[in-house]
Amino acid sequence: MIPLQTTRLPWMTEDIAMFRDAARRFIEGELAPHCERWRKQGFVDREVWRKVGEMGMLLPELAEEWGGAGGNLAHQLVMVEELGRTEVPVSTSVHTIAAHYILDYGTDEQKRRWLPKMARGELLAGIAMTEPDAGSDLQGIRTRAVREGDGYVINGAKTFITNGATAHLLVVVVRTSAEKGGKGLSLIVLETEGLAGFRVGRILDKIGQKGSDTAELFFDDVRVPAANLLGGAEGQAFAQLMSQLPYERMLLAVLAIAVIERALELTLDYTKARKAFGQTVFDFQNTRHKLAECATTAHVMRVFVNDCIQRLLDGRLDATAAYMAKSWCSEQQCKVLDECLQFFGGYGYMSEYPIARLWADARVQKIYGGTNEIMKELIARAL
Amino acid sequence: MIPLQTTRLPWMTEDIAMFRDAARRFIEGELAPHCERWRKQGFVDREVWRKVGEMGMLLPELAEEWGGAGGNLAHQLVMVEELGRTEVPVSTSVHTIAAHYILDYGTDEQKRRWLPKMARGELLAGIAMTEPDAGSDLQGIRTRAVREGDGYVINGAKTFITNGATAHLLVVVVRTSAEKGGKGLSLIVLETEGLAGFRVGRILDKIGQKGSDTAELFFDDVRVPAANLLGGAEGQAFAQLMSQLPYERMLLAVLAIAVIERALELTLDYTKARKAFGQTVFDFQNTRHKLAECATTAHVMRVFVNDCIQRLLDGRLDATAAYMAKSWCSEQQCKVLDECLQFFGGYGYMSEYPIARLWADARVQKIYGGTNEIMKELIARAL
Amino acid sequence: MIPLQTTRLPWMTEDIAMFRDAARRFIEGELAPHCERWRKQGFVDREVWRKVGEMGMLLPELAEEWGGAGGNLAHQLVMVEELGRTEVPVSTSVHTIAAHYILDYGTDEQKRRWLPKMARGELLAGIAMTEPDAGSDLQGIRTRAVREGDGYVINGAKTFITNGATAHLLVVVVRTSAEKGGKGLSLIVLETEGLAGFRVGRILDKIGQKGSDTAELFFDDVRVPAANLLGGAEGQAFAQLMSQLPYERMLLAVLAIAVIERALELTLDYTKARKAFGQTVFDFQNTRHKLAECATTAHVMRVFVNDCIQRLLDGRLDATAAYMAKSWCSEQQCKVLDECLQFFGGYGYMSEYPIARLWADARVQKIYGGTNEIMKELIARAL
Amino acid sequence: MIPLQTTRLPWMTEDIAMFRDAARRFIEGELAPHCERWRKQGFVDREVWRKVGEMGMLLPELAEEWGGAGGNLAHQLVMVEELGRTEVPVSTSVHTIAAHYILDYGTDEQKRRWLPKMARGELLAGIAMTEPDAGSDLQGIRTRAVREGDGYVINGAKTFITNGATAHLLVVVVRTSAEKGGKGLSLIVLETEGLAGFRVGRILDKIGQKGSDTAELFFDDVRVPAANLLGGAEGQAFAQLMSQLPYERMLLAVLAIAVIERALELTLDYTKARKAFGQTVFDFQNTRHKLAECATTAHVMRVFVNDCIQRLLDGRLDATAAYMAKSWCSEQQCKVLDECLQFFGGYGYMSEYPIARLWADARVQKIYGGTNEIMKELIARAL
Ligand SMILES: Cc1cc2nc3c(=O)[nH]c(=O)nc-3n(C[C@H](O)[C@H](O)[C@H](O)COP(=O)(O)OP(=O)(O)OC[C@H]3O[C@@H](n4cnc5c(N)ncnc54)[C@H](O)[C@@H]3O)c2cc1C
Ligand SMILES: Cc1cc2nc3c(=O)[nH]c(=O)nc-3n(C[C@H](O)[C@H](O)[C@H](O)COP(=O)(O)OP(=O)(O)OC[C@H]3O[C@@H](n4cnc5c(N)ncnc54)[C@H](O)[C@@H]3O)c2cc1C
Ligand SMILES: Cc1cc2nc3c(=O)[nH]c(=O)nc-3n(C[C@H](O)[C@H](O)[C@H](O)COP(=O)(O)OP(=O)(O)OC[C@H]3O[C@@H](n4cnc5c(N)ncnc54)[C@H](O)[C@@H]3O)c2cc1C
Ligand SMILES: Cc1cc2nc3c(=O)[nH]c(=O)nc-3n(C[C@H](O)[C@H](O)[C@H](O)COP(=O)(O)OP(=O)(O)OC[C@H]3O[C@@H](n4cnc5c(N)ncnc54)[C@H](O)[C@@H]3O)c2cc1C
Repeated sequence: MIPLQTTRLPWMTEDIAMFRDAARRFIEGELAPHCERWRKQGFVDREVWRKVGEMGMLLPELAEEWGGAGGNLAHQLVMVEELGRTEVPVSTSVHTIAAHYILDYGTDEQKRRWLPKMARGELLAGIAMTEPDAGSDLQGIRTRAVREGDGYVINGAKTFITNGATAHLLVVVVRTSAEKGGKGLSLIVLETEGLAGFRVGRILDKIGQKGSDTAELFFDDVRVPAANLLGGAEGQAFAQLMSQLPYERMLLAVLAIAVIERALELTLDYTKARKAFGQTVFDFQNTRHKLAECATTAHVMRVFVNDCIQRLLDGRLDATAAYMAKSWCSEQQCKVLDECLQFFGGYGYMSEYPIARLWADARVQKIYGGTNEIMKELIARAL
Repeated sequence: MIPLQTTRLPWMTEDIAMFRDAARRFIEGELAPHCERWRKQGFVDREVWRKVGEMGMLLPELAEEWGGAGGNLAHQLVMVEELGRTEVPVSTSVHTIAAHYILDYGTDEQKRRWLPKMARGELLAGIAMTEPDAGSDLQGIRTRAVREGDGYVINGAKTFITNGATAHLLVVVVRTSAEKGGKGLSLIVLETEGLAGFRVGRILDKIGQKGSDTAELFFDDVRVPAANLLGGAEGQAFAQLMSQLPYERMLLAVLAIAVIERALELTLDYTKARKAFGQTVFDFQNTRHKLAECATTAHVMRVFVNDCIQRLLDGRLDATAAYMAKSWCSEQQCKVLDECLQFFGGYGYMSEYPIARLWADARVQKIYGGTNEIMKELIARAL
Repeated sequence: MIPLQTTRLPWMTEDIAMFRDAARRFIEGELAPHCERWRKQGFVDREVWRKVGEMGMLLPELAEEWGGAGGNLAHQLVMVEELGRTEVPVSTSVHTIAAHYILDYGTDEQKRRWLPKMARGELLAGIAMTEPDAGSDLQGIRTRAVREGDGYVINGAKTFITNGATAHLLVVVVRTSAEKGGKGLSLIVLETEGLAGFRVGRILDKIGQKGSDTAELFFDDVRVPAANLLGGAEGQAFAQLMSQLPYERMLLAVLAIAVIERALELTLDYTKARKAFGQTVFDFQNTRHKLAECATTAHVMRVFVNDCIQRLLDGRLDATAAYMAKSWCSEQQCKVLDECLQFFGGYGYMSEYPIARLWADARVQKIYGGTNEIMKELIARAL
Repeated sequence: MIPLQTTRLPWMTEDIAMFRDAARRFIEGELAPHCERWRKQGFVDREVWRKVGEMGMLLPELAEEWGGAGGNLAHQLVMVEELGRTEVPVSTSVHTIAAHYILDYGTDEQKRRWLPKMARGELLAGIAMTEPDAGSDLQGIRTRAVREGDGYVINGAKTFITNGATAHLLVVVVRTSAEKGGKGLSLIVLETEGLAGFRVGRILDKIGQKGSDTAELFFDDVRVPAANLLGGAEGQAFAQLMSQLPYERMLLAVLAIAVIERALELTLDYTKARKAFGQTVFDFQNTRHKLAECATTAHVMRVFVNDCIQRLLDGRLDATAAYMAKSWCSEQQCKVLDECLQFFGGYGYMSEYPIARLWADARVQKIYGGTNEIMKELIARAL
């Protein structure tokens, strides 16, 4: 299958194309061979991110001043695509988001303290919002940070935290006052290494995304200096979280299209080789029509995502379009993956087949990053 | 609903925006008020097209040399959108296609003879391919044109011909030899006014598209000079038909998105005004989520169609992408229209409500212009 | 296609089978030939129902005491199926419901007065609930009946009333007091012949169901004797309406399955005869698989409907199951009809083809009889 | 949620109800507590089946003569349901099928030899048809059994064999001659204990159904006496396989409905307890409507499956209906499970939550037992 062309948008530069090639080579050569082991152990070895950092591929979008490669968000999104299609856990998605919180709201001091290390992969970051009783509705957050002296004392628990067990740096959403609405919530940055009172609970056993560590976190009288309060003022968490949302959603949307394209390649290869009843599986009209539908979805989505990326870079991606990208792309990802898997027959159900894993991995895309129901709530507000 | 932005592509010029405004004003002022009458009588009064021609809006894409306004295909597509959203029968779609056959394959003589009149709306054109026994499979065409002296004698019948009863000029696909494959087919141009042996059968009663005349045509020893053979050489029909396909399909795709956007506007207005159980219909979460999905489809489609238009203008729209546009957009059009209609309750089933008509109109988009099954066959060939 | 067997349930007696045969013969011989004319004029000639009455087929379920044929509800449902598959407007559905209101809640006097004439087809009945501003939410009903002397004075308007222009007897939902909830609503029976102040508005032009008259009704100081208050006590309308709901919904569900089965027959016949690319349309795998899916839906639905009928006769059909039957069967009807139509290519869009009409007819089934959204609301209450 | 009633069919006896109660108690008490361990180790401990056998629940449908409990197929189907809803691997499905091959085609000698042990759970059976290169199309089977002396020598490999690693008795489809069509295939029964040349390959790692061992099998010069040829005559495999198909498919259909009902219970419980934005998740209209749809599917399916069971017991279940049951029920199972999972938010993706496991388990139902594409091929033949 020769990929269909799309209109070349400004962001699709020669530089981006070269970056993609380099990323693919690096990922296939250095990371992909370890994936199976990572899936078995349930997490990516921390050291890996240093390597990625050394390549300038961990936060390529950061200015050199902050340790980055002076690229733009498109570089990061290209990384997500390339990791995704090779099945390397995209732990970098929360890492880059954390970095942008710091970049956009952090004090200069905070930026200097954390960004370069994050870019080098010395610190891997996570974001801890969700709690056992508060996911979609962040107002329900109970983890408290109480001001004591020149610091905060944190108590509570988080769950479903990506990179939860391997991250050295956590951006934690905490309640700093009982005020209603978002007013009571703040972002505090924790360096987890040897942090007293901080404990990683279980690495949760998921139905997919096996190589990514999703963990429970516990905070028992965890003490951090006030300097760790992001931006230095309390009660800003909501605004801080909101303004990164378009970018965050795009991280999921590009993953969706990358995985769909990969799945299509795999399925076309397989069905053109597999024989039944004296012909290839691809030659059955049902196969051809269904794959034509999947390829159509893929092409439409690629065009759509390209457009969103351009607008993201231009600073003109409205939040509503980002919600649409998140929900539509993830919805279609699950549909296409389900169609594709079917054409593998029994092999499609075997974890050793990439299609099987990609199928199980896809399911969570409708859930995290704001469930698709929440996306629709938000889209409807703009109607 | 504020329309979401999309990246501005080169074709989206100031000129195009002004043309759209002018077109909308003209259509709403001069054409829309007659729609109901046209629906009742089953066709648009021939004279209307002269008016459109006078405005330079019938074949705006033609060079001034040929009587056009010196615009490009985007101007024509904008017209299709504006007609479509106002429910004016888009008889111009086959008209422009016929014009492009002549423009691209006609001899200079033929171009001079027909194009200016077509641009002025003196001649309204139709394309007659389909026969009672041959639709998807044009190899089955039986209408014969036998060479006699310096002309052809045509016998046979066509059906489902748009503008069939009102067109003055018909591009007819005829069999000029018994050769297999496309080799035996040719395009002959007929001027129908007073043409002996030519007869328009019934205007067919359709479940929608009531204002557009779809008719049966009969040819009994119809004689035309050899000069009416398009391009002057026999056996070229297949190649001629094929190379216009991307454009033809785009005419249907832009109609789809225009109608979807119109339907959404209507439905948002209605549901925000209609009350039940003490709230507006829009306020029910089911309504909001479903309309969020429809709006998402609309936005994704708009981006996709924009991209296709750019590539069409650039001469780089591959046929496969056009098949995808035709099948995907028409499929989604039917889905969205069905969702929208439902929110009107009983009113949605009443022909006096635009939503009801748009719903019934939409259905044929999955059928004509090559059925969606044929589109999938063709897409699959490229996989 | 040989219909698949289902387990024979008690209601499927020899008598029912014979009744079905007789009904089919009668309908095909006496009614079907007039359908096209009825569709053109927009209503069924009133006299027709007398003929049906004479055959004992109008209210076959009524005891002989009331002029019926001493059958049961299954006889009526069989009639609905046979009318439906022959495309005779099923005006009898509201007729039988009206009869059952009278039978179950009417005084002896009322039963004697109306039921025999209804059974004989001398009186055709309609039910008038919906108003321009109150459909799903009957609490919004504004048509008022004010007690004056020994009668009521009715003022208001109704819309979307089936048999609205042809009915001689109307069961009208009126507000008899301003009390909240259902308490303020009552059913009053009107004999419309020469009724002062009563006026039939337009017969509404619908996108389908062309032969059935759906009309607006206006009441200007319409006076009726108190004896026309159904059951003799005010404020009972809600309870009265509710308890017939399972039966009413079944009338729509059996119509759905009858139409689906008919559509499948038509489509199998057509696709097995129609040729393209050297084979029949049926022989394309896409056709076969999609029709296999449709046939599966049909079979599952037939089994389900059979079961519901048994429980209805046994007096054990819970309301929730009836809501499910209404919404699921109508939903599937629209899906199957849409699939079937597609296989007819261009012919599927021509009103002269039954499949085209059945498709357009189907759409309203998701709307009337309580919209499917309302059905889901009600089903959810039982979860 | 109070389960909706269905018409009571003859097979739904008091005895069946009591058997179900006993089965549920036994399974919940004795089997369910071990499920997690089984999922971890990838198979059910062999001894378990002895316990089940002792309870008369392994092959309850067999006559006492053969060691059974003198019940009928409904007893076995009830077991499948009860195992399925408790997530005990339904290894018994292939066991009962194997038993019925022996019962229906085996010689008296063979029945005596194997059936009582199978009923007691001393022998657990599997069926080995599929090979790496032959799944849907059994004509492609290459495992050969060559007659040598008074026995056969078997060479080849099988894959995806349920109970493959734990079965003591395998019904193997082998090629006994090069004859085309089914003629060349035969069923040979192997007792695997200490069988020279027989080797179990890997237990395959699947995306779901973790507790069920699906394995590769290898045959290297495996020798078996001719007495192991099922029925004693070669070339019968196709006919033998075919005639059990309706029953086999029903084993999958009842599993589907049992799992759906279980998933609904879990989801209703969860959504009614889980809170977000100050209300329960169930209270969102989107949740209610979607669960209403799921509950409708469940109810329709239950009625349908009940009917199929009756016809199976009556010996009147046509193969086409069984194909429909297999494909439709599995299709719906996947849809409903996907909807349900979503309502659990992040928890729905955690393997410790039953809904997550049931979702992943469901996927294979569209593949094994004949893929749904093959089902549609077969259904279409009857149209
Ligand atoms: C693999 C994985 C990785 C994750 N990584 C992170 C991470 O790194 N950091 C982090 O903070 N969190 C993370 N999450 C958590 C994730 O963001 C939440 O699971 C998600 O936001 C949903 O929250 P919840 O699970 O509490 O579901 P709930 O909020 O309890 O939702 C339950 C259901 O109710 C629906 N619902 C809720 N509100 C409405 C409404 N108003 N209308 C209609 N329906 C509604 C939801 O859509 C959902 O279907 C991760 C989750 C997973 C599974
Ligand atoms: C309103 C309207 C306007 C029209 N205007 C024009 C016009 O202006 N000029 C003109 O020439 N024609 C016109 N048409 C005709 C239209 O192009 C044809 O109806 C269409 O191409 C399908 O042909 P058919 O109707 O013969 O269907 P068929 O070719 O008979 O197809 C029947 C069914 O078989 C399916 N099928 C066919 N081949 C395959 C395959 N290989 N695999 C799977 N499925 C297959 C089709 O998809 C369809 O579902 C118009 C039609 C309509 C309804
Ligand atoms: C052909 C035809 C025949 C008819 N015959 C009769 C007849 O004989 N007698 C009679 O009395 N009426 C009749 N009706 C009227 C019919 O019953 C109503 O149209 C129907 O009940 C819907 O009411 P509405 O049109 O006012 O829609 P509305 O109630 O205005 O509904 C508009 C939309 O809002 C949705 N909605 C409403 N409430 C909710 C909610 N709580 N949650 C989510 N969504 C909601 C609806 O589902 C619908 O999509 C007929 C209608 C038609 C079209
Ligand atoms: C968990 C599990 C347990 C199993 N247990 C057993 C067991 O106990 N014993 C046993 O013998 N087998 C078992 N199987 C194997 C199973 O029966 C096969 O996987 C299945 O029949 C499909 O065969 P396949 O995998 O070779 O797919 P293929 O036959 O290669 O099919 C590949 C794809 O082509 C499609 N296809 C094939 N033919 C057509 C056609 N004519 N038209 C359109 N599409 C077509 C299929 O639907 C599928 O999508 C099991 C499989 C699994 C996953």
